[in-house]
Amino acid sequence: MPHTPQEKKRVLTRVRRIKGQAEALERALEAGVDCAAVLQQIAAIRGAVNGLMSEVMEAHIREEFGQAAGSQAQRAARVREMTGLVRSYLK
Amino acid sequence: MPHTPQEKKRVLTRVRRIKGQAEALERALEAGVDCAAVLQQIAAIRGAVNGLMSEVMEAHIREEFGQAAGSQAQRAARVREMTGLVRSYLK
Amino acid sequence: MPHTPQEKKRVLTRVRRIKGQAEALERALEAGVDCAAVLQQIAAIRGAVNGLMSEVMEAHIREEFGQAAGSQAQRAARVREMTGLVRSYLK
Amino acid sequence: MPHTPQEKKRVLTRVRRIKGQAEALERALEAGVDCAAVLQQIAAIRGAVNGLMSEVMEAHIREEFGQAAGSQAQRAARVREMTGLVRSYLK
Repeated sequence: MPHTPQEKKRVLTRVRRIKGQAEALERALEAGVDCAAVLQQIAAIRGAVNGLMSEVMEAHIREEFGQAAGSQAQRAARVREMTGLVRSYLK
Repeated sequence: MPHTPQEKKRVLTRVRRIKGQAEALERALEAGVDCAAVLQQIAAIRGAVNGLMSEVMEAHIREEFGQAAGSQAQRAARVREMTGLVRSYLK
Repeated sequence: MPHTPQEKKRVLTRVRRIKGQAEALERALEAGVDCAAVLQQIAAIRGAVNGLMSEVMEAHIREEFGQAAGSQAQRAARVREMTGLVRSYLK
Repeated sequence: MPHTPQEKKRVLTRVRRIKGQAEALERALEAGVDCAAVLQQIAAIRGAVNGLMSEVMEAHIREEFGQAAGSQAQRAARVREMTGLVRSYLK
């Protein structure tokens, strides 16, 4: 999960970009750049992590609800799982 | 929306609590309480607003996906709407 | 706290706006507006609460560090208090 | 910045941990772990990024306000810079 090849690729691209941002931040800290620049890089990473979380959540919604459930019980289980994820991660 | 009477009541209770917290904060500021106490009250309001957003989002998921869609087009429209909401508000 | 009359007025104006936003949201919920509109109003409240927290923190920084400390011990105490507030509320 | 060797080491340790978390997430996605586990890892990274931002901001406060300013103008400039950083990144 995520399930389609395009979604998986998109999510992996985001994760690798975050890794690259962390590496750039490591180099900046070793080079002793000033505090404002460091905070700006950290804020950019924070934005990227939020974008990644949204992307994964969206992919999961498409996966879970893009096809009809096989039964009312399965539908209810999917809804329970999804509301639990929203409760845990929407903040 | 939210749709069931219980959900509506629960959401309204949360909104009224936030209103009450804002009123208490107003009184505290007028009374000149110290900064740490003010920030603690603001942080409590922030937590309450996040809880409210999650509650409304969860109610919407139950409403949209708790019943089978009438058609594949309707299902796709629901999924598009829900992923758009997650993209806008998960941050 | 905040200490100057202008700062106090500015903070109180923000708190009253948040109260007004909560009241408007209460009316919207009672009127049964749709979910997207409700979430948009909640997101606006969230933004207002974050702005309020920042305003109070900024006022506190001006108050604590705008005048020279009377002693190194007092300076150290102010720094400890401020870093504690950042640790608690920057998230 | 941050300035003392201990602070610099602490901040770098946090950045390297985030890089490691991103690498672990990349492997998990390639291995196809389920959505709930992916979201949990992303939430952990988000927490780590917030902790890093707080750590850097705290170090900056100690640096800027731990020593007496040389003049009232310098003190005012430091206060302006710090309130600007809080306004930009406290959210």
